[in-house]
Amino acid sequence: MTVLDPSPSAAAERPVFANAREARQAIRAGRWREHTSGLAPANVQGNVVILPAALASDFLRFCQRNPKPCPLLAVSEPGDPMLPTLGADIDIRSDVPRYRVWRDGELADEPSDIGALWQGGLVSFVLGCSFSFEHALIEAGIELRHVREGRNVAMYRTNIPTTPAGPFHGPMVVSMRPMKAADAIRAVQVTARVPAVHGAPVHLGDPALIGIADIGRPDFGDPVEIKPDELPVFWACGVTPQAVVMAARPAFCITHAPGYMLITDRLNSDLPFA
Amino acid sequence: MTVLDPSPSAAAERPVFANAREARQAIRAGRWREHTSGLAPANVQGNVVILPAALASDFLRFCQRNPKPCPLLAVSEPGDPMLPTLGADIDIRSDVPRYRVWRDGELADEPSDIGALWQGGLVSFVLGCSFSFEHALIEAGIELRHVREGRNVAMYRTNIPTTPAGPFHGPMVVSMRPMKAADAIRAVQVTARVPAVHGAPVHLGDPALIGIADIGRPDFGDPVEIKPDELPVFWACGVTPQAVVMAARPAFCITHAPGYMLITDRLNSDLPFA
Repeated sequence: MTVLDPSPSAAAERPVFANAREARQAIRAGRWREHTSGLAPANVQGNVVILPAALASDFLRFCQRNPKPCPLLAVSEPGDPMLPTLGADIDIRSDVPRYRVWRDGELADEPSDIGALWQGGLVSFVLGCSFSFEHALIEAGIELRHVREGRNVAMYRTNIPTTPAGPFHGPMVVSMRPMKAADAIRAVQVTARVPAVHGAPVHLGDPALIGIADIGRPDFGDPVEIKPDELPVFWACGVTPQAVVMAARPAFCITHAPGYMLITDRLNSDLPFA
Repeated sequence: MTVLDPSPSAAAERPVFANAREARQAIRAGRWREHTSGLAPANVQGNVVILPAALASDFLRFCQRNPKPCPLLAVSEPGDPMLPTLGADIDIRSDVPRYRVWRDGELADEPSDIGALWQGGLVSFVLGCSFSFEHALIEAGIELRHVREGRNVAMYRTNIPTTPAGPFHGPMVVSMRPMKAADAIRAVQVTARVPAVHGAPVHLGDPALIGIADIGRPDFGDPVEIKPDELPVFWACGVTPQAVVMAARPAFCITHAPGYMLITDRLNSDLPFA
């Protein structure tokens, strides 16, 4: 029940599922363990952070204070693995194709199911992801080089501070997409309309002004060419909360693996959720 | 009945009138012959082009095809000097503080009243002006250096083509305001909401990419410093239609003098007019 994605966002011939529920069923059954870019492209995908209840209210405050890097789409009830506001059948223990388990701030494992690790009191946070605004940019006719080349987006640590909450603090991580000025101006307008998935850019032009020493060497993801008639355009990135959580070195924490997102039933076209 | 303008847009101590009608009455009576920046700041001001009926439909098509440099606010009935959609008492023959009269494309005179030149068949065009979007930018907390320094905005001829109509054609003229990237991103969002006064920028960053050889030497207006942590941001400019009309060298034509605008009863807060 898969079809080939005819959109330019499919660099290789990757299947798309008829809907988000089918994609999640394949992931849950272990039939899909790849990254989720381009799967169910009309649907909102999310970054995932799962924390013990003792840290949950600090992290919630951190997200509220830093909505551009941490646009909260949903927070679970403590101990409840379901996320009914994002889809009736979503079980956070099984519906992400690859997780990262962190102990004392160090990566401990990358399982494809966390049922055995589930504990009462865990709280799941789902945060908006740039796949949604990239969908909006592509729909607006703006070509994204890393998508066309089938690469991961280039991401950088910056000197832009976040607003701290409890143990959570640290600089913003940004993603960068090169484009011509006219496209950058349109991209500001397109992404400003979707604050639930990072919103408008936080910077454009000179990378040094936000503390990026070498634009050719991203801290995460793949480098991408910037042509002479292009500007680098920078958006707040969902890697920020993950970096902030890691820096706080919680005893136990689970996230998704970068690019291996939770696919929700919510539609990109419904953003921001009313 | 004038008060001092406490806003940062008043570089010197220039009076503002209680309302647009009072400002027009002072202009009509010859009591105000200065430029109109900062006068009745809540009100929309407009660029003025007055053409013989034979050229009017070509110019109307030109404006329709080039809405960013030529955002049409009103067009008069042929031969009628009144502009009732912009204000009940507006008489285009007397309500602009300084006009320019052009014959065969050459500047022939700069009168403060054109009653003696009025002819049956003349059509008046009023086009949106950047004073309105500068008001919106200042309200959004974005400082404009040329306003703070009491200078005219820097304007440049570019290699950005307009879409021709009849005898009207030629490159776009842009105005430039230097700002930090974060302000530039907000400025895109603020000005995109006011398409009736030039809308979002047409370019930002490298001036050479739009054919500007020396950013320090504007073609119109005053040069302005660009600091190392700033980008030049370029908007389509209302000087474009004037340049295009001059290039067409009509036998007879009247415009406002740059900076000496028509003050209308319409409010900036009502843009775009419903």
